Amino acid sequence: MDAIKVQPLVVNYKTLEEFKRFKEYGNQELSMLEDLQNNIIENNSTSPFFGIYYGSALIARMSLYKVPSKYNYYFEPRDEYLELWKLEVLPDYQKQGYGEMLVEFAKGYRLPIKTNPRVNSHGFWERMGFDKLSYDMERDLGENPLGWRPTGVEEQNAS
Amino acid sequence: MDAIKVQPLVVNYKTLEEFKRFKEYGNQELSMLEDLQNNIIENNSTSPFFGIYYGSALIARMSLYKVPSKYNYYFEPRDEYLELWKLEVLPDYQKQGYGEMLVEFAKGYRLPIKTNPRVNSHGFWERMGFDKLSYDMERDLGENPLGWRPTGVEEQNAS
Repeated sequence: MDAIKVQPLVVNYKTLEEFKRFKEYGNQELSMLEDLQNNIIENNSTSPFFGIYYGSALIARMSLYKVPSKYNYYFEPRDEYLELWKLEVLPDYQKQGYGEMLVEFAKGYRLPIKTNPRVNSHGFWERMGFDKLSYDMERDLGENPLGWRPTGVEEQNAS
Repeated sequence: MDAIKVQPLVVNYKTLEEFKRFKEYGNQELSMLEDLQNNIIENNSTSPFFGIYYGSALIARMSLYKVPSKYNYYFEPRDEYLELWKLEVLPDYQKQGYGEMLVEFAKGYRLPIKTNPRVNSHGFWERMGFDKLSYDMERDLGENPLGWRPTGVEEQNAS
């Protein structure tokens, strides 16, 4: 068996079918499926998802998007940062370090990371070195933003 | 007993204590508490929350924020719209129409409404006349945006 590692996921029917096993399947995946069916995107095109396979089964995933510096309202200096969402490990594979592997992979870009985790996952994010970002209603609305900052990066002053 | 109705919630220690009974208690409420403790906001100042009391107990709530037209990336014409979040009814009071009362109250502003509901609540939002907005990754990231449009308002063309 191949070594277990984080890899970029391409968009095809097999991957989209595997995504259905994850709780946070939503508009994003439905839109990818429609785009594939309507030939708006090609089979095996790149996606914002990264995942971990155990044998041939996708057991963990996350989405990563590099936000351009002009939309950086969170970190100082105002360079690009990563938005991380839909981090999820399938139930049978939890508590075995796969979530940590995905987050460490994201940290490897050496960019600040912002995420809006689900309720009750704060212990995990704290262990991974993420801090609560100060809440600004007009910016954050219903979010609970957390951030990870590589050395030299600070939080922007709240407006 | 007073008639059951939707009312604006002011920020004070009693309200913030009642908020702890709701699942989606998060950064927003913690920040309101800190601001109150540090006298950054006054006792009984206005908040983005609206709620329903049953006797003296807060049993349902939501947050509403009027997004300025220049940040309207969802609806056409590009006037202001409402962002709705943290719609929640306490478990003992669910399935009795309180969620509907809150949403109908929001619709009373006759502005388009955008929300990013939790997984598994789509049946409710569909009954309330909300449609899935087309997904745009750079705009929506991990969201599953739904929208309600009064007559004459359309969805913006996806970029």
